[in-house]
Amino acid sequence: MKLFKSISILTLALFILTSCGSNLGSVVSNMTELKSAIDKAQPGDVIVMSNGIWKDAEIDFKAKGLVDKPIVLKAETPGQVFIEGQSFLKIAGHYLEVHDLYFRNGYTPINSVIQFKSDKENAAYDCKVVNCVIENFTQLDRRKKDHWVEFWGQRNQLLSCYIAGKSNNGPTVRAELEGNQHANCHHVIAHNYFGPRPRRGGPRGETMQLGDSYTSMVPAFIEVRDNFLDRCNGEVEVISSKSNYNQFINNVFYKCEGSLVLRHGNYATIDSNWFIGDDNSDNIGGVRVINTGHWITNNYFYNLKGNEFRSAIAVMNGIPKSPLNRYNQVTDVVIAHNSWVDCISPLQFSVGSNVNKSDVLPKSEIRSALPIRTTVANNIIYNSKTVSKAIVKYYDTPGDIDFKYNYVSGVEGVENIDGFINTEMNVSNGQSNVPFVQLADSNAKLFDGFDFSTINNDIFSNSRSANQAGAICAVKDAKYKVIDVDKYGPSWFVVSKGNANAKRVTVKSSEDLYASFEKANNGDTIIIDADILKLNKTIQVNKSVVLASSKKEQQVSLQFTSEENVPAFELGPGVDINLKHLIVEGSKTLTCFEPNHADMSIAANVFVDDCTLSGFNSIYRSKKGSFTDTVKVVNSVMKNLVNGFILHSETDDKGDYNAEFLILENNQVSDVENVFVDFYRGGYDESTIGGNFVFNNNTVERAGKSGSDEILLKTQGIVNVQVLNNTFSSVQSGFIARLWGEKNNVESGNTIQGKSKIVTDEFLTQKLLY
Amino acid sequence: MKLFKSISILTLALFILTSCGSNLGSVVSNMTELKSAIDKAQPGDVIVMSNGIWKDAEIDFKAKGLVDKPIVLKAETPGQVFIEGQSFLKIAGHYLEVHDLYFRNGYTPINSVIQFKSDKENAAYDCKVVNCVIENFTQLDRRKKDHWVEFWGQRNQLLSCYIAGKSNNGPTVRAELEGNQHANCHHVIAHNYFGPRPRRGGPRGETMQLGDSYTSMVPAFIEVRDNFLDRCNGEVEVISSKSNYNQFINNVFYKCEGSLVLRHGNYATIDSNWFIGDDNSDNIGGVRVINTGHWITNNYFYNLKGNEFRSAIAVMNGIPKSPLNRYNQVTDVVIAHNSWVDCISPLQFSVGSNVNKSDVLPKSEIRSALPIRTTVANNIIYNSKTVSKAIVKYYDTPGDIDFKYNYVSGVEGVENIDGFINTEMNVSNGQSNVPFVQLADSNAKLFDGFDFSTINNDIFSNSRSANQAGAICAVKDAKYKVIDVDKYGPSWFVVSKGNANAKRVTVKSSEDLYASFEKANNGDTIIIDADILKLNKTIQVNKSVVLASSKKEQQVSLQFTSEENVPAFELGPGVDINLKHLIVEGSKTLTCFEPNHADMSIAANVFVDDCTLSGFNSIYRSKKGSFTDTVKVVNSVMKNLVNGFILHSETDDKGDYNAEFLILENNQVSDVENVFVDFYRGGYDESTIGGNFVFNNNTVERAGKSGSDEILLKTQGIVNVQVLNNTFSSVQSGFIARLWGEKNNVESGNTIQGKSKIVTDEFLTQKLLY
Repeated sequence: MKLFKSISILTLALFILTSCGSNLGSVVSNMTELKSAIDKAQPGDVIVMSNGIWKDAEIDFKAKGLVDKPIVLKAETPGQVFIEGQSFLKIAGHYLEVHDLYFRNGYTPINSVIQFKSDKENAAYDCKVVNCVIENFTQLDRRKKDHWVEFWGQRNQLLSCYIAGKSNNGPTVRAELEGNQHANCHHVIAHNYFGPRPRRGGPRGETMQLGDSYTSMVPAFIEVRDNFLDRCNGEVEVISSKSNYNQFINNVFYKCEGSLVLRHGNYATIDSNWFIGDDNSDNIGGVRVINTGHWITNNYFYNLKGNEFRSAIAVMNGIPKSPLNRYNQVTDVVIAHNSWVDCISPLQFSVGSNVNKSDVLPKSEIRSALPIRTTVANNIIYNSKTVSKAIVKYYDTPGDIDFKYNYVSGVEGVENIDGFINTEMNVSNGQSNVPFVQLADSNAKLFDGFDFSTINNDIFSNSRSANQAGAICAVKDAKYKVIDVDKYGPSWFVVSKGNANAKRVTVKSSEDLYASFEKANNGDTIIIDADILKLNKTIQVNKSVVLASSKKEQQVSLQFTSEENVPAFELGPGVDINLKHLIVEGSKTLTCFEPNHADMSIAANVFVDDCTLSGFNSIYRSKKGSFTDTVKVVNSVMKNLVNGFILHSETDDKGDYNAEFLILENNQVSDVENVFVDFYRGGYDESTIGGNFVFNNNTVERAGKSGSDEILLKTQGIVNVQVLNNTFSSVQSGFIARLWGEKNNVESGNTIQGKSKIVTDEFLTQKLLY
Repeated sequence: MKLFKSISILTLALFILTSCGSNLGSVVSNMTELKSAIDKAQPGDVIVMSNGIWKDAEIDFKAKGLVDKPIVLKAETPGQVFIEGQSFLKIAGHYLEVHDLYFRNGYTPINSVIQFKSDKENAAYDCKVVNCVIENFTQLDRRKKDHWVEFWGQRNQLLSCYIAGKSNNGPTVRAELEGNQHANCHHVIAHNYFGPRPRRGGPRGETMQLGDSYTSMVPAFIEVRDNFLDRCNGEVEVISSKSNYNQFINNVFYKCEGSLVLRHGNYATIDSNWFIGDDNSDNIGGVRVINTGHWITNNYFYNLKGNEFRSAIAVMNGIPKSPLNRYNQVTDVVIAHNSWVDCISPLQFSVGSNVNKSDVLPKSEIRSALPIRTTVANNIIYNSKTVSKAIVKYYDTPGDIDFKYNYVSGVEGVENIDGFINTEMNVSNGQSNVPFVQLADSNAKLFDGFDFSTINNDIFSNSRSANQAGAICAVKDAKYKVIDVDKYGPSWFVVSKGNANAKRVTVKSSEDLYASFEKANNGDTIIIDADILKLNKTIQVNKSVVLASSKKEQQVSLQFTSEENVPAFELGPGVDINLKHLIVEGSKTLTCFEPNHADMSIAANVFVDDCTLSGFNSIYRSKKGSFTDTVKVVNSVMKNLVNGFILHSETDDKGDYNAEFLILENNQVSDVENVFVDFYRGGYDESTIGGNFVFNNNTVERAGKSGSDEILLKTQGIVNVQVLNNTFSSVQSGFIARLWGEKNNVESGNTIQGKSKIVTDEFLTQKLLY
C-alpha cells in the first residue's frame, strides 16, 4: 500500500512476462478496441487499457491463455485507469490476469462488479485479479443486492486488491459453488486490504461468503490468507464460511464488528490469524463455530470484549437432526495453541442454546444439541489486569469438551477448573500495540492429541520443534508489526487519509448559508454570525459539515418555513451533519432531518449538541431503504413536536432496520403529541445484533398519544435498548416503553410521575426469515 | 475359493515375511499363551494359533508393528483354526495382520465379531484382516444387534474373506466414523466373498453400512472393490453409503435383493460394477441415488426388473432443506458410460416423490425437491426383446436432467426423446451368462461433459482413448467370466454345496418317526408307511426334512394329541419342513407349526402340498422375534380351525415383521372361527419392502369372526398383497380384506357370496420410525 514501494515481485514478474511475451502490449482506448483485442487475444498477449476514465465499461474478458502464457489485461499506468459509471468486469476462460484497475464513482448494473464467469456455460479457471481497487462502488439504493467479487469456476485468485465501502445488500466477496464446474474450486483470496464496510442495518452484509447452505456439502478448499480486514462491520458475520475444507490463515481482523463464522460446511482450518478488538466495543468478535471437524490453531485474540455470538470463541449448540439451512451440532473440533490476551471470557460454549424458547419457536429452531468430541488444549489465556470472571462460559449444560493443559494468567480461581493451570507469563510489546504473551516456563507440559503433530508451526511460522502452549513459540522479531497496512492491497494505492481540504467559513445570511453548503468540502465548519436566519428551502447536505453558532452562549435561531413535506436538512450519502449551539425551528408539517431519496447508498449521520429543536413534525424520519449509522442528540431541548424520531420504514420484516444507533442523552423533551421514538426491526434473524437505542438522563414532560396501548418510546424488535435515569411526567401513552428482556433491553433509575409505565417482556413472538 | 488353488500371492508374501522376520512364529495353543504372546509382541513377530477349536475366545490383539515389520496373528493351518462359542477378535494399534481364522458355531458376546479397536482410546491403524471366514456366526435371537466386522481407526483392510449367513439385526460390515481418529479413514474392503444374507423381515439388514446420518459430513474415502456379493438379501440397502468420497469399484452384485444406496454423504464413485438380476425377481435393484456429486460410470446392469426404490438407477426426490437424517436433494450427479441390458425401465427419477401424501405425513417428510444439475450421457440401453415401455420413468415432473448421447436398441419410440438415439448394437456372450453389448458404430458421437476426461477406462480397464458409449469399449477376452466365485474369499475355503449325507428313510410307528427326526440329516426324506400315527408329543424339527406318505393316493393321518400350548411341529433355526400327502389333525389348543423359541437365529420355512390340516388352534403361529422366510400351503384342505396363520408378534412398530412370504394357493378353507390370516408390520420405514402375502385360487366357506369391523385376512402394514380369483361364501367378518392401495396391495377376480367385502384404502396413517 505504500505509495513509493519498491517494485513488487509481482510487478517484476509481469515486467519480465510482458518483455518476453509474444506481444508487448496492445494499447486500447475505448470499448470497441478493447472488445476487439479480447476477441483476438492469444496466449501470451497483453492488453493495455489506456489511462483515463472508462465510463459504463462492460468488460467481458473471455479468452484462453496457457499456464506459461497467460493473457493479461492491465492498466497503462497502475491506478490511472478508472472504471466508473455503470460498469463491470467478467472473466471467463483459462489463465487470464487482470491488473491495476480502479473501480470508483459508480456501481454495477448487473449482480457483480468482478465476476469470474461470462455466462452459465463459461466460467473462469486459473485466472487472477491483481492489484485492483473497488472503492465505494456501491448501489444508490442500499436494498439492491450485488456482490463485488463473485467467484465461479476453479483455481481463481484475488490478490493484493483494495476493496472498501460496500454499503448495500449482499456480501462483498462471494464464492458460488453450485455445479461440478465450480466445486473443488481451490480459489485463493490473499494479500488484500478489505477496507471499512459500514454497518448495514440488517443481514447480508458479509465481507466474504463462501457458498451457502445449499452447497454446504461441497468441497471448496478456498484459501483466505494474509489479508487485512479493517473494520468490516457489515454484519455479525465478517466471513461466513459455508462450504468444506476452507482455510483461513494469517489474516488480521482489525476491529471488525463481527466474527469469522463457520456457518455451514465442515473441516475448516483457522490458523495463525490475529483478531484485534477494542476496549470500548463488545461487538468485535472472534470465531464462531458450528458443524464438524474444524481446527482452530495458532490464533491470537487480543482485546475482544464480546459475549455470545460475538465472543472470542463461540461454540454453538446445534439443532438435533438439523434442517440443511440451520445449525448442525458441533463435533470433533480442535481448539489448540491459541492465545487469548485481555479477552476476559474468551471461551463460550452452547452459544445460541434456546431450549427456553420452545413456546415461541418451532421445534426445528430449538438448539439443544450440545457440542461434543471437542478438544481445547495447549492454549494460553492472559489478562493484564486480574479478573474474576469465568474463562469458560456455558449457555447450557457442558457438552463433551476435553480441556487439557490450558495455561492461565490473570484470572482468579483457575486452580479449581480441570484442564486449566495458573502459571506465570511474560509479555513483550510489539510495535503494533499488540503485546506478545508467552509462558515463562518454556518446558510446560502439553497435550499430545490425535494429529496434534500436524500443528508444526506457530503464528510466526516458527517450527514447533521446541513446542510451547499458545500461538507464539518464539518472538523472533520484537519489532514485528501486526497492524501494518502497507503489507496489503495494491502498492500503487494509498488509502485516503481524510479531509485535506477542510476549511472554516463564517456566514451572515441565508443566501451565504445555502452557498456555503453547496461549496462545502468534507470536514468544513460553517459558523453562523447572526441572530436569526429565515430559511425557505431545504438545506442539501452533500458533504460532512459542522454547523454552529459563533459562540456557545449566543445561540443562532434558524427558522425554517419551507413548503410542506420537505425536510429542513436533506442528507446525501455518507455525510455527517453536526449541529452545535443552534435553535432550529420548524412547522408541524416539516421534518428536521431526512435522507435524500435520490442516493441513499451510504449511511448519513446526525449529531446534535446543545441545540433547541422545536415545532417540527418530526426530528428525524427514515425512508424505505435508508440507513443511518448514528443519530445522536445530546444536551438539547426538543419541544412542541408532533413526533420525535421515526425509524420505522423497513416493514418487510426481513431483519432490516433504519439506524444502527439512536442516542438521546441529557435532553429536555416536552409537548410531543404523538410517539417520540418509533424504532422498528421486523423478522427474526441473528445476522444482525441491532439496532441500538440509548435514552439516558432525559426529562420528558407532556408527551405521547393518549391510549392504554400507546407507547411513547417504541422499539419493537430492536436488540439493544437502554432506558436509564430519566424523569417522565404527564405521559399520555399507556406505556413509556415495552422492552424485550431476552435481547439486552434494560431500564433502571427512571422516575415516572403518572400512570404510564415501562414493562419488560422476556420473549417476543417472531416471524422466521428462512 | 478353490480348495486346491496354487499358493496365492498373499500367502507367498506371508511365507517370505515369516521366513525372514525376527520371529519365525511362536505357536500358542490356549488363550493364556495367546494373551502373553500378544503382550510381548514386537515388530516383525508372528503369533501362530494352533489348529483346533478355540471356544469362547476373546482375543484382544493390541500391539504396535511397523510399516515394514507388521505383527501377524495367524492360523497354524489356514482353515484349521476354528473360533467358536462366544468369541470375538479386537484389533488395536499399528500395522497388525490377522490371517486364516474361521469363525463358526457361535456368536459374539459383544457388539461385533471383528472390531478394529480395543476400547475408546485404542483403535487400529494400518491393520489387515485377510483370508478369514465368518459363517453363520449369528445371534440366537435375531432381534439382538451386532456387526460382524466393525471398522474403526484409519487405513484398515478386510481382504479376501468369506462372510455369510448373518440373520440377526445389524449390518454385516459397519464403518464407524465418529471422531477425528476415525474420519478420513481410507479403509479398504476388497476381494471378499459376501455370501448369502437371508431376508431379515425388517430394517438394519445391510451387508455394508459406511457411517450414519450423524457422520454424513465425514470424509471417509472407503474403497469397496473387487468383491462378490451373492444374494445379500438382508434388506432394501445392500450397501448403505453414509459418508463422503467412498468408492465402489469392480464389485459383482449377484442377485442381491436390494441396491447400492448412496443414502447420506456425497461424491461417491461407483465405477465398473456388475449388477446382475433375475428374470423372475423385481426385488433386485441397482443404484439408488440421493445427495450431491456422485459419479456413476462404467457400470453394467443386467436383467434388473425392479421399479422405484429397486430400479436399476433410482434417482430420488429430496426434502427441501432436509433434516440431517432424511433426504437431501440430488444435485450434480454424473451417470455416464453405463450399460443397461434387459432392464426395460432402467432410469427412474424423482423416486420417492410423495407430495400426494401431505395429509398423512409431516411436512418434513415430503420429498418434493426434484433432482437438478444431473447429467446422463454416453450410456447404452439394450433390450434383447423389443419393449415399448419408457426408458425413463418420472415419479414427479422432470427435474433439471441433461440427457446427452444415450444410445438405445430394443425400445420403441426412442426417436421422440431428446438425448436418446436409436442405433444398432452387437452382442457377444461371455462365459458367465452375461452378454456383452456394444454399439455397432464404434465412432458414434459422445458428449464431452465437464471432467468427462477423467473417465479414462472402461469396465475392463481398457483405455478409453478409442472411446465408446456404454461400459465396454472393447471385449479383450470373450471368455471373461463375470460370475466366478473362485476369484473371491480365502483360497483355502470352499462354500458348502449342500446335503451330501441326505437319505431316505421309511417309518412305520410313532417311535420310529420321532427317532428319525432326531437322527435326521439335512435333506432327508421321511416316508410314513402306516394309516394312522398317534403322536402325543411335539416333533422337534432340527434339520430340513421332507415328510410324506408313501403314496400320493394314500394319505397317512397324523393325529396329534399332545398337551396344551405346545406345537405339533417345532422348527429349529434354518430348517425347511416340507409336508406332502398327509392328513394332520390337532386340537383346538394346539398349533400345527411354531418356531423354537430357544433358537430363532435363522429363519425356518414351512412348505405344505396336498395335505389336510384340521382341528388346530392355528396352523402357523409366530413368536416375538421369530422370522420365517416362507410359509407356503398349496393344494390343501384347511378346516375346523380357531385361527389360520398368525404372524403378528412384532408389535413394537419398528418396521419388523414375522414372515417374508405367506403363500396360500389352490386350497379349500372351511369352518374357521376367528381370523384366517393375521399378518402385521408396524412402523413406517422404507428399508423393507415386505412382507408378501399371496392368496390366490382358494375357496373359503364359513369363516371369520362375526362383527362389522372384523377382517378375515388381516394384512395391516404389509407391502405386497395379492388376493386373486378366490371364492368366498358365508364369511362372518365385515371385511374379507382391507388393502393398502399405495403399497402394491391388489385384488381381482374374487367371487363373494354374502355381505362381507374387500376394500382398498389408498393411504395408511403411519408411525414414523425416526
